[in-house]
Parts: sequence; structure tokens; C-alpha cells
Amino acid sequence: MNETIKTQLNHRTIRAFTAEAVPKEHVQTLLDVANHTATSNGMQAYSIIRITDQHLKDQLAEIGNQDYMARATELWLFIVDLYRNYAIAEAQGVAGDDLINADKFFQGFTDASLAAQNVVVAAESLGYGCNYFGNVHNDLEAIIELLELPLYTLPVVGLGIGVPNQNPQLKPRMPLALKVFENQYQKEDDYLASLKAYDEEMQTYYDLREANKRVDSFTLQVARKQTSTIFKRNAPLEVARKQGFKL
Amino acid sequence: MNETIKTQLNHRTIRAFTAEAVPKEHVQTLLDVANHTATSNGMQAYSIIRITDQHLKDQLAEIGNQDYMARATELWLFIVDLYRNYAIAEAQGVAGDDLINADKFFQGFTDASLAAQNVVVAAESLGYGCNYFGNVHNDLEAIIELLELPLYTLPVVGLGIGVPNQNPQLKPRMPLALKVFENQYQKEDDYLASLKAYDEEMQTYYDLREANKRVDSFTLQVARKQTSTIFKRNAPLEVARKQGFKL
Repeated sequence: MNETIKTQLNHRTIRAFTAEAVPKEHVQTLLDVANHTATSNGMQAYSIIRITDQHLKDQLAEIGNQDYMARATELWLFIVDLYRNYAIAEAQGVAGDDLINADKFFQGFTDASLAAQNVVVAAESLGYGCNYFGNVHNDLEAIIELLELPLYTLPVVGLGIGVPNQNPQLKPRMPLALKVFENQYQKEDDYLASLKAYDEEMQTYYDLREANKRVDSFTLQVARKQTSTIFKRNAPLEVARKQGFKL
Repeated sequence: MNETIKTQLNHRTIRAFTAEAVPKEHVQTLLDVANHTATSNGMQAYSIIRITDQHLKDQLAEIGNQDYMARATELWLFIVDLYRNYAIAEAQGVAGDDLINADKFFQGFTDASLAAQNVVVAAESLGYGCNYFGNVHNDLEAIIELLELPLYTLPVVGLGIGVPNQNPQLKPRMPLALKVFENQYQKEDDYLASLKAYDEEMQTYYDLREANKRVDSFTLQVARKQTSTIFKRNAPLEVARKQGFKL
């Protein structure tokens, strides 16, 4: 155990921040950490859009249907970026579809995700709270237009960073036995039985998003995802193809 | 600056490990860290396969065409896992395609990536070295068969962890100005000119993988990716569809 791991095990999503800004030096440090994250084949096929314009934050919050997004102190969007490398190849007269195919797309998607998590750990180590915004997938096209994202790019995940103004409970997690396997995948015969204790634990958790009400059991949350789908979220591959990726 | 960030800024890929095992308590700690990583909608749509069978490691190294993969002390595979949640919904009589669609697939892919990076930071904070294995994408179907991965799962990235037995140079990164933008994406007029200094810096870097020879400039590496494509890597979406995802 060390400070790094203590911070990681204490990760909570922070959705409310104080008015305090994140000083420029910290922003720079967090970006340096992003820049030193491992990337597939060293290709660095991701970029970060830092949203500082309140009007854009407001619009992103509206598209994402989460008003607290507009109040994120720092709001960063991590994107797959094959535009840059495609342009680099083009300048050398060798650009082609292999640079924007599904394999490269997934490399860029992974690069963006790894960089985002590296920033989260660094930010939390400095005492900041973080909030991933998966809601950027609610309407990818709207975000692409809003932030003028070029061909061969796609939003992966948003990230809010700031000084915490809330102290949520640690959210219970599924037992590792259900998600870590040795040498081959192990199916459970009866997931509901295996998850019974976790389901009970989850019901003791208060979600600060919803006026401090307790949350559903995990298995019920999974079942409800079936009916809570946001229509525009269903077509990320179609949007990616419109963005020029050869998928 | 603190110990966490110092470690992050010092990240290097470690491909050679000593014979020393990673003690059970450390494995447990790293798995706990994975388990506390943020996940999309709390759905925890990823799993980890820990490869301890040397024969399997050998086969993975062969499929991935990187022999040092067989010598990774700890070798973990992070996978998208919608199988578990689909089974949970099925047990409640509400399973349907919305649980295995493209949106959920990308959520699981992100979950797996975030967990992997969280483990990397934790492992490095304990003095271990890490090596991402993107080569699991060389032949996804072979890996799915080898590790008996069920429907609605797909490999995302492999991870080697162990006590470093090499001390590589810090790999130079592209200047942040080229990958971090404020409020909207900024294209460069002349990427080759903007990358000239970085290209020169990259040529001073020695890649320990290839008998200590210096590497190509970054822009030349990008250009070469065009012609170095591994055939089976081109169809991840087809494999995902065979795995049952409704993409």
C-alpha cells in the first residue's frame, strides 16, 4: 500500500466542485501526464479538447442531459484522433485507408481512454475530484459539430476535474471472483444468486445525483438499462463512418 | 508534483522482467485497484483473464508474434464483457439487443481500458514495470478460442507486469500543442514542419526491442504504418459481430 494506491482505492465520482480554479501549473502537469501515457505503437492517436468557453460547456451539458457538466471546473474531451496521423502520411504522399481502418480506430479509442484514466489518477493525487462524462455519446454528431472535430476523429469520453464540493460514499463493486478469471473465462450458473450479497450492499449506497435516494440493486440496474436506451446513442459506428473511418 | 505523478511522468514500457514473482498480496491489490476504477453507468462491463498457464502464455506470444510476451511475469487480458450483464438480464427475463449494442460495446471497451491503465499506475507505483500488449488484436478469434471467451466478450488489451530487468530511455512524445486544443479542434497547416524538432528528438531514442538500434523519426513511423498492416487485424468489427455484439 502506498499513497498512489490509497488514492486509487478511494476513487469516487465527484459531480460538485467549489468555485476554485485549477491553477495553470496543475493543468500543465495533468496534460504532461496525459502525454506520457502509453499509446498503441507509439502513434498517439488521440487528442484532448479543453473546454474553457462557458457557452460551449452549457451546450455540452444540454446535449449530454446532465446540467452539472456545465459546472465542471475543468472540462476536457478525449477523442480518437487519426486525422493528425493521416495528414502526416498525406504530406509524405502515402496516406491510405489502412491508416483509418477499424484496427487503427480501436487503437485510438484505447489511447484516448488510457490517457483519460492516467489524468484521473494524477488529478486525484493532487486532491481534485473527477467525473467521467460518458454522456458525450448521447449525440456524437452534435458534439462533432459544436467542437469542429475534423474527419477521422470521434469523441471517446469527457472528463470534469475540480476541487470537490461533496463527499460521496465509496460505490460498492461486484466481487472480483465474478470478473477475474484464471486462464479461461468462467461462467456462473446462477448470477442472481452469486450477486445477492452485492445487490444488498448496493442498496445501502446513496447516489448523490438523485437527491440522496438509495439506488437499486445492481442486477435491477442492469435490467433497467434494457429500457433506458437513448436513441441517438445506438449508432456510434454510423457516426464514425460519417467521420471518415473505414470500419 | 508528488510521487504518483513522478511515477506517471517516468512511464516506460518494460519488456524484460527478472525471474521474481509478483507476490499474491500485490496481485490482489492490483485487482482491487482495477475493481475501483470508474466504469460506464456503474455497469462494470469488462473482465480480466489472468494467464498463469505457461503453455497459454506461449501460445498468446505466438499469436501476438512477440516472444517476450511468453516471459511476462504476470500476464493479464482485459476484455469487454457484456456476457455477464446479458446473463443477469436474461435471468430476470428482460435480456435484449439493447444490452449488447454498439453503445454498450463501447462502454465495455472503455471500462476495460480505464481499468488497465489504473492497474498500470498502481503496478508502477509498487516498482513494477508494465507492457501493454496490443498484439492481442493480431488475431482476435484465435485468442477467443484459446481462452474460451463466451459470446458478448472481446479482447481489448493485454498487460504484462513484473520486476523490470531493463532500464529503457524515456520515449519522446509529440508536443502537447499538437494534441491539446482549446474549445475547438485546431488543424496544422504543415504537420511535417511542426513535427521537425520532435522527429529529430525521436531519432535519438533507442528502442530496446530492436537490438538497441535507433528508431525512425515519428513522421516516418506514421508513414510506415501504412504498409505494415497485419491482415487479421483489419476485421475487429466482424469478429465482434461473430461474438454476438449487435453492431
